[in-house]
Amino acid sequence: MPLRFPEPTPETDHYPLTIGRMLDAALVIASDQEIVYRDQVRMTYRDLRVRIGRLASALTALGADQGTTVAVMDWDSHRYLECYYAIPMMGAVLQTVNVRMSTAQLEYSMRQSGAEILLCHRDFYPLAAAVLPSLPGIRAVIAIDDGVGDPLPPYAAGEYEALLEKADPDFPFVDFDENALATTFHTTGTTGDPKGVCFTHRQLVLLTLTAKGGFGTTGAIGLGCDDVYMPLTPMFHVHAWSMPYQATLLGLKQVYPGRYDPTLICRLRETEGVSYSHGVPTILQMVLTAAEATGTDLSGWTMTIGGSALTRALLLQAQQMGMLVHAGYGMSETGPSITVARRRPRIVESEEAAAESLTLAGVPLPLVTVRIVDEDMRQLPHDGVSRGELVVRAPWLTPCYMGNEAASAALWRGGWLHTQDVATIDAEGRVAIVDRLKDVIKTGGEWVSSLDLEDIVADVQGVAEVAVIGLPDARWGERPVALVVPRPGEQPTLESVNIRIEAAVASGVISRYARLDRLEIVAELPRTSVGKVDKKLLRATLAAAL
Amino acid sequence: MPLRFPEPTPETDHYPLTIGRMLDAALVIASDQEIVYRDQVRMTYRDLRVRIGRLASALTALGADQGTTVAVMDWDSHRYLECYYAIPMMGAVLQTVNVRMSTAQLEYSMRQSGAEILLCHRDFYPLAAAVLPSLPGIRAVIAIDDGVGDPLPPYAAGEYEALLEKADPDFPFVDFDENALATTFHTTGTTGDPKGVCFTHRQLVLLTLTAKGGFGTTGAIGLGCDDVYMPLTPMFHVHAWSMPYQATLLGLKQVYPGRYDPTLICRLRETEGVSYSHGVPTILQMVLTAAEATGTDLSGWTMTIGGSALTRALLLQAQQMGMLVHAGYGMSETGPSITVARRRPRIVESEEAAAESLTLAGVPLPLVTVRIVDEDMRQLPHDGVSRGELVVRAPWLTPCYMGNEAASAALWRGGWLHTQDVATIDAEGRVAIVDRLKDVIKTGGEWVSSLDLEDIVADVQGVAEVAVIGLPDARWGERPVALVVPRPGEQPTLESVNIRIEAAVASGVISRYARLDRLEIVAELPRTSVGKVDKKLLRATLAAAL
Repeated sequence: MPLRFPEPTPETDHYPLTIGRMLDAALVIASDQEIVYRDQVRMTYRDLRVRIGRLASALTALGADQGTTVAVMDWDSHRYLECYYAIPMMGAVLQTVNVRMSTAQLEYSMRQSGAEILLCHRDFYPLAAAVLPSLPGIRAVIAIDDGVGDPLPPYAAGEYEALLEKADPDFPFVDFDENALATTFHTTGTTGDPKGVCFTHRQLVLLTLTAKGGFGTTGAIGLGCDDVYMPLTPMFHVHAWSMPYQATLLGLKQVYPGRYDPTLICRLRETEGVSYSHGVPTILQMVLTAAEATGTDLSGWTMTIGGSALTRALLLQAQQMGMLVHAGYGMSETGPSITVARRRPRIVESEEAAAESLTLAGVPLPLVTVRIVDEDMRQLPHDGVSRGELVVRAPWLTPCYMGNEAASAALWRGGWLHTQDVATIDAEGRVAIVDRLKDVIKTGGEWVSSLDLEDIVADVQGVAEVAVIGLPDARWGERPVALVVPRPGEQPTLESVNIRIEAAVASGVISRYARLDRLEIVAELPRTSVGKVDKKLLRATLAAAL
Repeated sequence: MPLRFPEPTPETDHYPLTIGRMLDAALVIASDQEIVYRDQVRMTYRDLRVRIGRLASALTALGADQGTTVAVMDWDSHRYLECYYAIPMMGAVLQTVNVRMSTAQLEYSMRQSGAEILLCHRDFYPLAAAVLPSLPGIRAVIAIDDGVGDPLPPYAAGEYEALLEKADPDFPFVDFDENALATTFHTTGTTGDPKGVCFTHRQLVLLTLTAKGGFGTTGAIGLGCDDVYMPLTPMFHVHAWSMPYQATLLGLKQVYPGRYDPTLICRLRETEGVSYSHGVPTILQMVLTAAEATGTDLSGWTMTIGGSALTRALLLQAQQMGMLVHAGYGMSETGPSITVARRRPRIVESEEAAAESLTLAGVPLPLVTVRIVDEDMRQLPHDGVSRGELVVRAPWLTPCYMGNEAASAALWRGGWLHTQDVATIDAEGRVAIVDRLKDVIKTGGEWVSSLDLEDIVADVQGVAEVAVIGLPDARWGERPVALVVPRPGEQPTLESVNIRIEAAVASGVISRYARLDRLEIVAELPRTSVGKVDKKLLRATLAAAL
């Protein structure tokens, strides 16, 4: 028999999952709620709605329409929040530009996304001047003077506040297909051109709904209706993890810190009562240091940490200063939220166990299905031990890389998004990231983590730095090789290192296949542009010498 | 320009918002979590998944297919939870049968929904025997013996547990259109046939996601990851407010109490550690009484109250016994959750103010847009005073009444769902229900609440019972008339009543248009089948006598 469907009336509201609908609901409960930008701007949600209308009118006057890509280069600000809504609500596409990219990457990504309008903060005028000559597709630039009052650069069509002031607040927003593109941005790897990911209205609404309160409430983790929100993740970085959408949906007070300044961040925390933030470990470390210097009270401030692993040392340091800190996991391709770390519900964990729970990648959000699989996509057990590539399904994963069919097909091989991360999953769904797939050493049917091996070797007498890579081996598939930078005047040996590895094998910390056959002493390790050890180059160099 | 859309790969997972997807994710984090039925059954989520597969296989063997309607008559049980998943996951439609309807209403609703299979608990065998002869569309009945071991009724194709035991757990569930019907049930008014509402997979997933943690976290209201859930709303009543879906999504321990027995409920609360429930005021009252009798500790038990107004007296009584109680608002047509009461965030409320906040209808859930409108659909201000009909948009409202175009068109007039309730909304979005639209007295351009007037008149010396209705008036539109049942030996007068109303007018409690022109002394008030005063009959009778 066929499926049955309801028969709506001509007037039934079909409620598309578009970003504008999220704003409508928030305005009913929070019209007087505050949105703060540094010590410069205070406005209400009602003002936000007026300014969104004005921004859409101003962009339209500059030629923007449904389908137009509008690129933004700004720090975390109320303006960026306005762009998060106004641009997608017009049916246009918001391109959040990573201002840390090289000019070549900027050019590439803005050209690939088809950006026609650029909003540019004064701090990035030099960047804009460098790339605009080779971007003829950009027909208008809105300069963001940020209250300074300097003359505008020659290529600017106008200044943000001046354009808004003369624009009509009553922009005729209309409903449209929830599967339309809302945002796009580019992610940079170690090699090759940046890859453009993209997200639809439906996807961002579903991510916002799911992540809201999605951490559960144990240990007061996640945004609640009495929180004051301040991002410490750049808003060009994966929608600031969708948190500005969540905060607005819940009608929370929001505080935008502009360019990150540790002293100002500590002051905003105190004067505005900030209670929830999120950021990378480096930002947390910066905040802790500044708080110590300024005597800022951090107690009760919750912070979700992503981007790279939250170490136990940093967790404990933050806890000692009264913060509630926990890890999360995701990537540009996943919007980003996939898992969040939490204490185990209804179990009294020891301090040690709690620290582990809070520093793991965490448990999947609702609707997120995770699997670990071997190279043939066979599912591995959730026993906390088996290691496989983490693959994911969720309603908000990028459907493709823009204009890159081969990479898109690899990303979605077998109907699951491939994270390229190797993980374990335990019976309670806790995901632990073990290594990058390309760095894990596949030997004798086992996947040995290069990171685990590096941790062990780094502890050996005389080792200053170490990288472990896998090299092809006819019998074992791959075998691990350690490249060691010695401390001055010392010379660690294969034997001294293997003694330590044997001990780890004996205590069950690592597989017996982790024993090293080879150790190379090197003067330094090659690094990528973002400062990571370039294992790809190491593998290529050593494999060529085999 | 046209909208832009992503270009997914052939293998990109499109993630339809179907009910089965919610279950997949929960199984990763909660495979060992418990589901308990009375003191009879304990099983895990892993068992739940196996039994869902078996149930789908058993139903298929009895002729069920995509599009088949399967009706269920059961108490709150693990079986009902299995039906909540297995039936929609097959692409079939779950009809939750209100076992309190008359046999005529049962027949009507099962015929209209096209039910082909019936699952029937032993307590309802007599009901089934009464209606089956006039329902030839029902091709199979599964008897639920509930562990007693009696002979099955002659019309039964088999017993639930026996059928499951021999059925294949590996049912081949497939993805399908998220807009397919998932559930249907009938709502009874004071007159006319029951009306069938219906909900799609997409709608139930969106309601579940939004309501989950959607109350925010002030005062620990709403389901969190460390709660133990037990419904005290019948599962045939508007999906038990979607809470079983929420509890499963979050991987919580769930406790199903079967037929409501206050002593057993108190025992389950203690032995299973139940921390979150929901129900009508009558159930709460019943629990409080039983807890007092049995000495059950209720502290920390949260309960959401809906169905009818939560009085301040009941709230205080529950609070004194340690419970966290708050109101919610919705109706069959709205799935039902629309608003939930909470303490105002980031404000220190007095006890009095907190009691008001917790007993109002509450604030709209995320994505719910509410308006109050006059008879011409003009929007009225959110000033806490203006009264208008509450109209709603949300992604989970019934698209129509099944097979009733006229009622559907009235429900969705002007693109908003009409609740038929009169409400105020304040600047913080707090909704207060004032009256039913059909009962409010529209006089002199004001909407006077018949309930408010009745509260005032009920306090007058000599008044045992009172109903206030509006009658047509050439000059004022309508004028209020009070029908008073006097206390034995007393005779309240229009003058004595109006003195009290004047005082209320003077203190601003009620509009001056509330003054009565007429008071009728009656021996008793006519009532509907569910025990409410039949104001429709009163209006007709008195209008005919004008």
